[in-house]
Amino acid sequence: MPPAVRLANMAWAEYHGNTRLMTAKTLDNFEKALSEKVKNNIKSQTKMEGKMKRYGKVIRVKPEKLEEYKRLHANAWDEVLKMIKQCHICNYSIFYKDGYLFSYYEYTGENHDEEMKKMAADPKTQEWWKLTDPCQEPLTTRKKGEWWAEMEEVFHTD
Amino acid sequence: MPPAVRLANMAWAEYHGNTRLMTAKTLDNFEKALSEKVKNNIKSQTKMEGKMKRYGKVIRVKPEKLEEYKRLHANAWDEVLKMIKQCHICNYSIFYKDGYLFSYYEYTGENHDEEMKKMAADPKTQEWWKLTDPCQEPLTTRKKGEWWAEMEEVFHTD
Repeated sequence: MPPAVRLANMAWAEYHGNTRLMTAKTLDNFEKALSEKVKNNIKSQTKMEGKMKRYGKVIRVKPEKLEEYKRLHANAWDEVLKMIKQCHICNYSIFYKDGYLFSYYEYTGENHDEEMKKMAADPKTQEWWKLTDPCQEPLTTRKKGEWWAEMEEVFHTD
Repeated sequence: MPPAVRLANMAWAEYHGNTRLMTAKTLDNFEKALSEKVKNNIKSQTKMEGKMKRYGKVIRVKPEKLEEYKRLHANAWDEVLKMIKQCHICNYSIFYKDGYLFSYYEYTGENHDEEMKKMAADPKTQEWWKLTDPCQEPLTTRKKGEWWAEMEEVFHTD
């Protein structure tokens, strides 16, 4: 696990109220320990933060294809996962219940539509979708151009 | 925005391949800048990381109550949000589409069931649920004791 991730988890845990692992005093030392260069990076990072956008999407899965869909996703291809990351999609999960698949991800890039086009143009991703698309049944109420139907975020708390 | 969160975002961005904002050299300086005390905290934090669990849940919303549900959640009560955080639930979102509500959250505590009981025993949360429950229609396929039906995670990538 990269040190940046351990650090991020620690900071998140503190922010989210898990004070068992990090007291206010430790946090204070933690901040003091940062170099000026890092502090400046944090400032420039602040601009980017506002751009993270959460996506929730829904689609149906064909009952007879559910096991195949699960099997595929239990061993998703490295090239596909790499392309997802390259397109600034992170913390991406898919959940199943009663014929529905719900997906959740966080987009940290600057142009979601453009990066989705980039992903759709990737030959390995296209190959992957040739296997996964036939498992799915898109909602008839989806918007034009959608496969997974985008949902409306009605609540969020950090 | 607390410094810990700005820092966490920076670290996550680096890990998730967004190198536009943080070069390898900056990350190196960043790590060097950490005090021994913080480094030790990171070590103890590593143990906790494995315990984070993602939850996806689904429920229906009554069509005539959708607007009320959205209105309530656009101004959720501080006491309710505070209780959510106290129960180690974070990054909690609810999405809507076609009569379905999908919720996603991350649990960083050590006993999910116990903390859900704690939440259910909180008078302010009970008061809140008296407003939100009548907006919802739980799935008939939910498990015994469930209100929101827990979904199965079939895919995840960081």
